[in-house]
Amino acid sequence: GVEKKILVIPGDGIGQEVTAWGQKVLSAIAANYHHNFTFEEGIMGHVAIEATGNPLPDETLEKAKNSDAILFGAIGHAKYDNDPTLKVRPEQGLLKIRKELGLYANLRPIKLFDELLEASSIKPEILRGADILFFRELTGDVYFGEKKRTEDRNTASDLMIYHRYEVERIARKAYEAARTRNKRLCSVDKANVLEASRLWREVVQEIAKEYPDVATEHMFIDNAAMQLIKDPKRFDVVLTGNLFGDILTDEASQIAGSMGMLASASVGDKVGFYEPIHGSAHDIAGKGIANPLASILSAALLLDISFGLKTESQRVIKAVEATLRQGYRTMDIANKHTVNDFIMGTDAMGAKVLENLN
Amino acid sequence: GVEKKILVIPGDGIGQEVTAWGQKVLSAIAANYHHNFTFEEGIMGHVAIEATGNPLPDETLEKAKNSDAILFGAIGHAKYDNDPTLKVRPEQGLLKIRKELGLYANLRPIKLFDELLEASSIKPEILRGADILFFRELTGDVYFGEKKRTEDRNTASDLMIYHRYEVERIARKAYEAARTRNKRLCSVDKANVLEASRLWREVVQEIAKEYPDVATEHMFIDNAAMQLIKDPKRFDVVLTGNLFGDILTDEASQIAGSMGMLASASVGDKVGFYEPIHGSAHDIAGKGIANPLASILSAALLLDISFGLKTESQRVIKAVEATLRQGYRTMDIANKHTVNDFIMGTDAMGAKVLENLN
Ligand SMILES: CC(C)[C@H](C(=O)O)[C@@H](O)C(=O)O
Ligand SMILES: CC(C)[C@H](C(=O)O)[C@@H](O)C(=O)O
Repeated sequence: GVEKKILVIPGDGIGQEVTAWGQKVLSAIAANYHHNFTFEEGIMGHVAIEATGNPLPDETLEKAKNSDAILFGAIGHAKYDNDPTLKVRPEQGLLKIRKELGLYANLRPIKLFDELLEASSIKPEILRGADILFFRELTGDVYFGEKKRTEDRNTASDLMIYHRYEVERIARKAYEAARTRNKRLCSVDKANVLEASRLWREVVQEIAKEYPDVATEHMFIDNAAMQLIKDPKRFDVVLTGNLFGDILTDEASQIAGSMGMLASASVGDKVGFYEPIHGSAHDIAGKGIANPLASILSAALLLDISFGLKTESQRVIKAVEATLRQGYRTMDIANKHTVNDFIMGTDAMGAKVLENLN
Repeated sequence: GVEKKILVIPGDGIGQEVTAWGQKVLSAIAANYHHNFTFEEGIMGHVAIEATGNPLPDETLEKAKNSDAILFGAIGHAKYDNDPTLKVRPEQGLLKIRKELGLYANLRPIKLFDELLEASSIKPEILRGADILFFRELTGDVYFGEKKRTEDRNTASDLMIYHRYEVERIARKAYEAARTRNKRLCSVDKANVLEASRLWREVVQEIAKEYPDVATEHMFIDNAAMQLIKDPKRFDVVLTGNLFGDILTDEASQIAGSMGMLASASVGDKVGFYEPIHGSAHDIAGKGIANPLASILSAALLLDISFGLKTESQRVIKAVEATLRQGYRTMDIANKHTVNDFIMGTDAMGAKVLENLN
């Protein structure tokens, strides 16, 4: 067995409820496969601001740097959304940890479990067989460029900026992944308008030459947002910047039936960071109805990517599949048109996955 | 009857093929209702670069300023998309005319014709009844902020910037429209990350107070990209910036069955500018298979918004409806699962609409 230190950061809103299940699944895997996982907990986001005034306390960052992998929940709170003038904000914690840990590549696999074919607003015949792996650049773009507000507060700006090396390193990662899949890569930008996108496209065109076995396509973001719904099967690996990736992957959640199913892995310099794509969902937080599967599938990604434990990772995915096959559903993935679904809350659903693990 | 001067700018690719039909419909309306429309033609985009070296020749701009309304086709060419290093680009023409004419509000109505309920990749029960009016800000944002490339060409940036007055004026237009509709307005931004979005949200919150009869909601762009597909009926008026509006409205084309159905109106200081949402589509340009309905529906918007000719505008829309009801379809809106559709090319389809006008 392996010996690993995992930092768990539940964060805000439903992050608290679902991350508990990601962690329980990791514990169960450790027990079943005789690994030794030790867990620490860290605070970040609104909860950290409330406790310390800082959305990413130094202590959490230290723990993160000293861990072998991080399981994160969600971030954000209505209070800040309703008051855009607040200076200290939960999201700053998430952006800072991504930057500090050098997590420049955010992998977001979009795959539909057969059992959820009917849960989406998109027609089953459009969805069947769709399987997309997004590579979203995560430490550059308009997220991290300089932000300004004039003194009279009447003008505000953010710098959308990319450096060649930032595009190169994530492009290589995306091409390497495309090689192990269907050998198609679609790079998404807005090169007909944006200079940062023109650099993006130039660099991807160069890196493409190193991978002649992969078919490269360039697409404008507006067209990509349409094609994703019109014909999701045309995509294999999608490579894009931070902002466009944020938008496209949320949109792509409809391909997987629900946002509540989607996990992501952020990797880069060293330690990997795993989180559901969904947010803190303050409208349903505390009600015990959030879908724990995205956190559980994030745990599966963690086992695979950070620890190289492929068998264990597959075991988790199979347990999720089995749970869905048995008809268990959280609200977000229930099919309103059948009576065969057993609708349950977060804890009941998590418990079913645990049962199926054993 | 009224006397009006219309500038027609077919532009690039399928713009040439479809705009001819928008113009023919305007001529037919003039004949039927005893108006006197005179048409001039202008060049813009790739065709203008080829002819003059300039994507927006001064002559075209002069004609535009002296016209009562402009009917535009599409812009763009594969040559520039494949070579991001080219300095003179077709899109610069479109961006410049938008700026010079002060076309700060781009209205994009998304409405599904009943006959096309099955043409979309989205389930009919999700779509039925969806009716959204987008207000996309069109002369600000990262489209017009300063663009930079370092001398070593390794760093590129675009400034995402908004001024208070830019948000105010389009917000008022959107609220006024919401008052005449279902009195719901959703403002889309990324205020949890971007300073420009925080200004956007502050200003919209202020303007909202002037319209207490309209229910305001604020949504992050990533969530909006998802909700649009998950539950399009939750939206009435959507207000957003230039970049987010570009992305969301292309995505929303799937609600209307096809991009080939969507018209837009750009208004502001004086003369109105009408264009399909679709692009130049160089993959199908010259083949005679493009859908002319978006151009024809753009002509309908022109009659209504620039000339105040509501009856005439409705007459055009009814002719399009009748054509669809008769089963005539261009490729993009044909239902692959029925054999009842008569699939035709651009000219045959346009001619059917003309017949139905008389
Ligand atoms: C919470 C927010 C800052 C974040 C982002 O925009 O990156 C989230 O939407 C995500 O996709 O992880
Ligand atoms: C062609 C391009 C510059 C344009 C835009 O991005 O505004 C187009 O996509 C549109 O939506 O009108």
